Amino acid sequence: MTIHSPIIILIRPQMGENIGAVARAMANFGLSELRLVSPRDGWPNAQAEAMATGHASQIVENVACFQDTAAAFADITRAYATTARPRDIQKRVVTPQGAMEEMPAIAGKVALVFGPERTGLTNEDLSWCESIITIPTSEHASLNLAQSMVVVAYEWHQFAMGKTKEISNIPTADLSQYDQLFRQLEGHLDESGFFKVAEKKPAMLLNIKTALLRAHMTEQEIQTFHGIFRALAEK
Amino acid sequence: MTIHSPIIILIRPQMGENIGAVARAMANFGLSELRLVSPRDGWPNAQAEAMATGHASQIVENVACFQDTAAAFADITRAYATTARPRDIQKRVVTPQGAMEEMPAIAGKVALVFGPERTGLTNEDLSWCESIITIPTSEHASLNLAQSMVVVAYEWHQFAMGKTKEISNIPTADLSQYDQLFRQLEGHLDESGFFKVAEKKPAMLLNIKTALLRAHMTEQEIQTFHGIFRALAEK
Repeated sequence: MTIHSPIIILIRPQMGENIGAVARAMANFGLSELRLVSPRDGWPNAQAEAMATGHASQIVENVACFQDTAAAFADITRAYATTARPRDIQKRVVTPQGAMEEMPAIAGKVALVFGPERTGLTNEDLSWCESIITIPTSEHASLNLAQSMVVVAYEWHQFAMGKTKEISNIPTADLSQYDQLFRQLEGHLDESGFFKVAEKKPAMLLNIKTALLRAHMTEQEIQTFHGIFRALAEK
Repeated sequence: MTIHSPIIILIRPQMGENIGAVARAMANFGLSELRLVSPRDGWPNAQAEAMATGHASQIVENVACFQDTAAAFADITRAYATTARPRDIQKRVVTPQGAMEEMPAIAGKVALVFGPERTGLTNEDLSWCESIITIPTSEHASLNLAQSMVVVAYEWHQFAMGKTKEISNIPTADLSQYDQLFRQLEGHLDESGFFKVAEKKPAMLLNIKTALLRAHMTEQEIQTFHGIFRALAEK
């Protein structure tokens, strides 16, 4: 199954820096196609280019700029408006994650739409959008354009790569190696008179082992601790 | 179960603007406690204050600033370093989401640690951190401090609020209301001679109904369409 990456559409963006910041967020999370509708300061834009370093510069170079909203949406199958939940329009509202999970069911191009920094999307802009993506925030929050783009692009990447919680686990020493370390330590402690009250020894040993096990040591670290205990005992 | 919000620790942050941007991301996603270790330009910082508007200003006012890394970590139970996966250090690496899901099992304060903008965390900084949080990105990505903070804070909020994919669903008209609309429409179409070939009518009607059902209309919208069909038919 190939799912095409969503297209980002910025409607009447104001500051070039923000267009550049959007491109950066896109590049970091594997999105590439950016459309602008009536950018305030025209296009191309030097501030946008200055902000969009690295892989983001390609995105800015390949921007498609439209004067007409209808033309920007012409080949889109489904558009999601990214905005705080509007008061006076009844539209389905989903989270970024919920929206990404719908992508496989959509045959055609998907657009994620962002409004102008100050004023947000108008009802006319929203009329192109089947659904609204609202990013869950704390009360009285106000996400700016770049922050919203980071979250939405991040969720796209999460979805596209398939979620894996644990990226990497260091191979931990097996318990036979731990056991050798514990025996060595116990021997040293016995010799040193560490266990003053014999009845308490089992519980004390258990606590020591528990703590060391929780360290999830590698083989190399086990060897290091063998060396540490030996060095201390021989001193 | 009460889970305390993690504490954000910025180690040797360079630009005041970035400290302010971190505070903004925190405020938007319900984090409140920020610590700085040896900020380059000292503390307080006018740029940080200028950037941290709204609820973020409280976070900046309440910053705890340390010269000593050890003091900043003294009361922390577990610290996660947010960084790209380091090459030469063997530490457990988790995603932001994976880290948040571990919070309930940690009794004590949790810190999420970010390094300086240019150089990142040193091995000495990393020695305080039990695990590493690596944000999944596309290849050759480079997340800046503010972007990383947005993702991590967003995932904290996602975790803290409990994930709900569908924030809101508009109540859709029930099928009896749809059925009335279909009957009205069919009547008008019959009268107008729309169904030229009688055998094809059932399939054509089915297609029309399918399309209208997919609109998930509200009661109000059904009424609106009654009006639309009536107006068209009477014209």
